[in-house]
Amino acid sequence: MASFKDFTKEEVNRIIERSWKAFEAYRKYPLQKRAAFMRAIATEMEKGAKEVVPVAMKETHLPEPRLQSEFTRTLFQLNSYAEACERGSWLEARIDMAIPDRNPPRPDIRKTMIPLGPVAVFGASNFPFAYSTAGGDTACALAAGCSVVVKAHPAHAATSEWVANAVHRAARQLNMPDGIFGHVHGAGFETGQTLVTHPYIKAVGFTGSYSGGKALFDWANQRKDPIPVFAEMGSINPVYLLPQKLQESAVETAKMYAASITLGTGQFCTNPGLIIGIAGAELDRFIAALSEAIKQVAPSDMLHTGIAKAFAVNRAKALMQEQVTTVAVSVIPAKEEQGIPTIASASASTFLGNPILHQEVFGPYSLVIKCENMDEMLQVALAMEGQLTSTLMATAGDIRQYETLVDTVKQSCGRIIINGVPTGVEVCLSMHHGGPFPATTDSRFTSVGADGIQRFARPVSFQNWPDELLPDELKNSNPLQVWRTVNNELTQQALRL
Amino acid sequence: MASFKDFTKEEVNRIIERSWKAFEAYRKYPLQKRAAFMRAIATEMEKGAKEVVPVAMKETHLPEPRLQSEFTRTLFQLNSYAEACERGSWLEARIDMAIPDRNPPRPDIRKTMIPLGPVAVFGASNFPFAYSTAGGDTACALAAGCSVVVKAHPAHAATSEWVANAVHRAARQLNMPDGIFGHVHGAGFETGQTLVTHPYIKAVGFTGSYSGGKALFDWANQRKDPIPVFAEMGSINPVYLLPQKLQESAVETAKMYAASITLGTGQFCTNPGLIIGIAGAELDRFIAALSEAIKQVAPSDMLHTGIAKAFAVNRAKALMQEQVTTVAVSVIPAKEEQGIPTIASASASTFLGNPILHQEVFGPYSLVIKCENMDEMLQVALAMEGQLTSTLMATAGDIRQYETLVDTVKQSCGRIIINGVPTGVEVCLSMHHGGPFPATTDSRFTSVGADGIQRFARPVSFQNWPDELLPDELKNSNPLQVWRTVNNELTQQALRL
Repeated sequence: MASFKDFTKEEVNRIIERSWKAFEAYRKYPLQKRAAFMRAIATEMEKGAKEVVPVAMKETHLPEPRLQSEFTRTLFQLNSYAEACERGSWLEARIDMAIPDRNPPRPDIRKTMIPLGPVAVFGASNFPFAYSTAGGDTACALAAGCSVVVKAHPAHAATSEWVANAVHRAARQLNMPDGIFGHVHGAGFETGQTLVTHPYIKAVGFTGSYSGGKALFDWANQRKDPIPVFAEMGSINPVYLLPQKLQESAVETAKMYAASITLGTGQFCTNPGLIIGIAGAELDRFIAALSEAIKQVAPSDMLHTGIAKAFAVNRAKALMQEQVTTVAVSVIPAKEEQGIPTIASASASTFLGNPILHQEVFGPYSLVIKCENMDEMLQVALAMEGQLTSTLMATAGDIRQYETLVDTVKQSCGRIIINGVPTGVEVCLSMHHGGPFPATTDSRFTSVGADGIQRFARPVSFQNWPDELLPDELKNSNPLQVWRTVNNELTQQALRL
Repeated sequence: MASFKDFTKEEVNRIIERSWKAFEAYRKYPLQKRAAFMRAIATEMEKGAKEVVPVAMKETHLPEPRLQSEFTRTLFQLNSYAEACERGSWLEARIDMAIPDRNPPRPDIRKTMIPLGPVAVFGASNFPFAYSTAGGDTACALAAGCSVVVKAHPAHAATSEWVANAVHRAARQLNMPDGIFGHVHGAGFETGQTLVTHPYIKAVGFTGSYSGGKALFDWANQRKDPIPVFAEMGSINPVYLLPQKLQESAVETAKMYAASITLGTGQFCTNPGLIIGIAGAELDRFIAALSEAIKQVAPSDMLHTGIAKAFAVNRAKALMQEQVTTVAVSVIPAKEEQGIPTIASASASTFLGNPILHQEVFGPYSLVIKCENMDEMLQVALAMEGQLTSTLMATAGDIRQYETLVDTVKQSCGRIIINGVPTGVEVCLSMHHGGPFPATTDSRFTSVGADGIQRFARPVSFQNWPDELLPDELKNSNPLQVWRTVNNELTQQALRL
């Protein structure tokens, strides 16, 4: 595996300075030109799919079909966010026309979005393409008009280097300003700190662990000028088994969840790590079916040594907690650094009394919580930390009957699924991939879907500007044909003057 | 003047607990019911205008016409944000319909906004109605579906108490849940700290000083679960006099600015505290006309003793800085606790070398900066901290010629005005009242205009929900007739299934 030397602080600073220079030019580029750059990145990447997928396979131990589909998803993100960038709805253009004969006269005021500045992006170990170098955060930042500096994830540094080179080629083809995309290596925390504390860095995108994300968040808030950090820090994604539904389909549900828990060796942020039901014959049937299925799932390679060790440690730690029962473990022998599919169970009171059981065990592991009754299930829901997702396995009757539970669950997550699995995050506008702290550091923004562009922009009002000097999206004639709110009405029309 | 005892920590905690209980019910109220409550508050307040304006006059020393118009503005805010609440555009409803025959099938996903939770609101000393008890932050929070706990500003505690009683009456009339609106008194910082650090408080609205806002921001970020703080912390609102415009209209500009600098005894967040021009005959003419006008403006009462003292201290501190010249002071004798209209000047190099001159002097004061040339003006713009507003006094030719300056100015502010004054903040959708740190703690949100509602809500995705269980704004039939983005297209139509 290729190894890359850590960049020195001076090297990182130089790259950030070039990023700022590039930003000063790029922020004025029209939406079409930004979109063209994003599409060119996708095209350059696509040309080398056969070259890079094997590199990523070696670095991440992810199987080829998984990486191939993630690669395709990455191109889709670049292309679809490029389209959203051009469409311009994310600018939330608003115009209130002057009322000169009011007392006092109302001036003409128009609002749009401008980019924040150079964005530092920290890629995810579990998504070497889609949430790394030219992944969702980078695509959103470029669409918003920001330059980007990526810190390569050390676990897939060669893949990252390859993607960075594709971005550089696309930048040269389109004569993008020198420094529009920077790429740095650094295995220690110092590189990250240099990025986040540099005065020219104006926002941060991150996908990874709680400790990593929280450190960036704290550094950013301790700056002389605090900057926003969009850190997605994982989740245990609780699944609530409601009584009627459980009675109807304990076995089907168990099978569906055995697959979801072990998908991609359990290495998804949306992996269902907690399943909550009412103790009794139905839940026993569910657990039996889940156990039977889990036992037959072969252990598989984890992303890298660090992740494999963390899974082994965290799994062992969870299983050895008092009153926790190991329910099922894959019967197929595991090689070193493989994740062993595992189900444990505990009572609700055990869960409520032990914060360790609330922590994510990143890998193919899930804990079944047995509640005495629905009241206790509500107590569990009330005690739940912020989550990316929550799932209700429920009939319509269950939802209506347990309204308080449903409201409580909604309050603690960013996406709420009925009768499905949380794994599988669609890239579309209606997707919210986010959630209350500690799932993310900013519950108001998504890191999946084109609404993520807004993370890297801020509104500015233009008061009393002559038409020809306004940004295109605010001009009288609406040359970009964007949807705008004019005097409180949404329209794509030019202004009627 | 009425005096109010500080609430004990236990009393504040009890009010927060009631606020949480109220939130659990209120968050589910339909938009119409929230809007009705907001309108009822306006109606209750309106009934007592004659009663409360004299109370506010006594507490704030603001003249009757100013308070009367602020009172009217407050009712307008409540009513117009109620309308925006019902219109529902702020929910940014998005629907991506299922594609069952895709491989893998795409589930139905729909996104809307849900309220964050109880909001703590800290009113402004300079806006006893519009940015205090039932002001912009409270109106936005109620529209978003949040309960509110207001800390009365100690400088107008009786006015605040009166408004709180109006809110309580409106709440009783409409059978709002007990605790929907809480009101606490506390002159020290402890009450604020209790509010911001309480686990049930989920967001903070604040208008005031940098030190106050920054303290809340730090407390909020040091919580186990950090919460968003929307603090508007003031600004010096630089005004750039561009060469051609200055040549054309030095005297008219000076007169306009003499009025803006002294409006409301200079006690607006958008008061122009810094005017930047190129040294020479035109700037001398501007300064002469400004001085002449300022000398004739009578000193007037400041809001309260604390503000008057701070103005005296900060004004004296600025004037005694090396190389700062006092240019003009009102010739009309001042009474105690009045703000004395004052103009000072300094060279750009003095300004660039002295951080004290970058600080706000809250009151009728402005500093004129003399640059040697446009390059130096650009240096001043580059050195500018985040601002609520910046103003360009400029011809179209100036704007085109000095594009780099214009881009630089845009980067550091939330609203950019051409040929006008920054004072006067319209309440409309296109208004952005915000700006980069230290003008505010979150440049992405406004505290004026109905877009401010979004500060207190966050997106949630609903995946695979049966139609009848979805929130109204996401239902197939679109019963609320809100604008929604359905499969990437904006529409008010019901879904075509």
